Amino acid sequence: MELYDVIHRRRDVRAEFTGAPIPRDVLDRVLAAAHAAPSVGLSQPWDFILVRDVRLRRAFYEHVQGERAVFARGLRGDAAERFGKIKIDGVLESTLSVVVTYDAARGGPAVLGRHAIADAGLYSVCLAIQNLWLAAMAEGLGVGWVSFYREAYLRELLGIPGDVRPVAWLCLGPVSRLQSAPDLERHGWRQRRELDAAVHLDRWAGRS
Amino acid sequence: MELYDVIHRRRDVRAEFTGAPIPRDVLDRVLAAAHAAPSVGLSQPWDFILVRDVRLRRAFYEHVQGERAVFARGLRGDAAERFGKIKIDGVLESTLSVVVTYDAARGGPAVLGRHAIADAGLYSVCLAIQNLWLAAMAEGLGVGWVSFYREAYLRELLGIPGDVRPVAWLCLGPVSRLQSAPDLERHGWRQRRELDAAVHLDRWAGRS
Repeated sequence: MELYDVIHRRRDVRAEFTGAPIPRDVLDRVLAAAHAAPSVGLSQPWDFILVRDVRLRRAFYEHVQGERAVFARGLRGDAAERFGKIKIDGVLESTLSVVVTYDAARGGPAVLGRHAIADAGLYSVCLAIQNLWLAAMAEGLGVGWVSFYREAYLRELLGIPGDVRPVAWLCLGPVSRLQSAPDLERHGWRQRRELDAAVHLDRWAGRS
Repeated sequence: MELYDVIHRRRDVRAEFTGAPIPRDVLDRVLAAAHAAPSVGLSQPWDFILVRDVRLRRAFYEHVQGERAVFARGLRGDAAERFGKIKIDGVLESTLSVVVTYDAARGGPAVLGRHAIADAGLYSVCLAIQNLWLAAMAEGLGVGWVSFYREAYLRELLGIPGDVRPVAWLCLGPVSRLQSAPDLERHGWRQRRELDAAVHLDRWAGRS
């Protein structure tokens, strides 16, 4: 599939997962795309935990519902009402989940390009996530990034060492369709910003 | 261009920039691709500062050379020798630079999906960077991410407010060619890791 089609059709999926199987070769291509991302000092500091176990996913789902309630308690009026209609995850409906982690020790101690910016390794992990997301799209799959969780909980659930940081819980699998606009825009949570407002010439030109 | 071709041919460019102009419509498509990235709570917390001014780029280049020396002082023996041969930026040779920033206040105060993971907004900015990178590739341009700098220096240089964080300095422009292997691998700094070593099933399976 053409790159621009993938980029512009991509959505963050919640409700449209079918739960149908993902062929092994498809999953391999998606993971290989993630693994081909750039990384600071060629550290490739990511790992991918494929979570298929239904008990693990159900436990995570329950945790996510608790964090949803935490967030909801901070909302008032219209915002609370709008949030009430928004589905925040497809953990149980999607085919599997992929937890992406960051190991700061990989390639160390002297990671080329990281001495001045400690987070550069974390940035690399996110580049891999976007590759994964676009590759999934090209394969006809959807991805939904769930971020209503505490990192400590996820570490404990999956046995992730204390010095490895979970960066994302991604729901992955075939979808019935893709929405043409983001869920949050459709539900009136927030509108997309114009690109022009985000572009500055030579120096920061103020907020807009 | 096909997504997988772009993903697997992509390189982090240093020495191959030609300095040739980038047509305006090409630049617009590349920035629109970045702007189409997913973001936590649809916050779209990124901005893009297009740095064309030669004095700004030269000042940044000098700063980068200073940080190169800082990193080099921490290396011994073989590593120091290998690093000596590695070019770390194409700031002066590339057509322009794009500084990508993160504004944590955008979409606030209650950013949907960020209450439990403060860095989720920073992650969104990185997804936009990877979209930009791949779109540039599809347009026949190269990208080189330079991370030998101090954030405070870059803020001062470009007038970026104290609560907006510079995330990346990207060199952008036409290239004479793309290397088939990463520079750091070609120069013996580090070898790429096997994908299998990065994939775990259901639970963290140990480091490898």
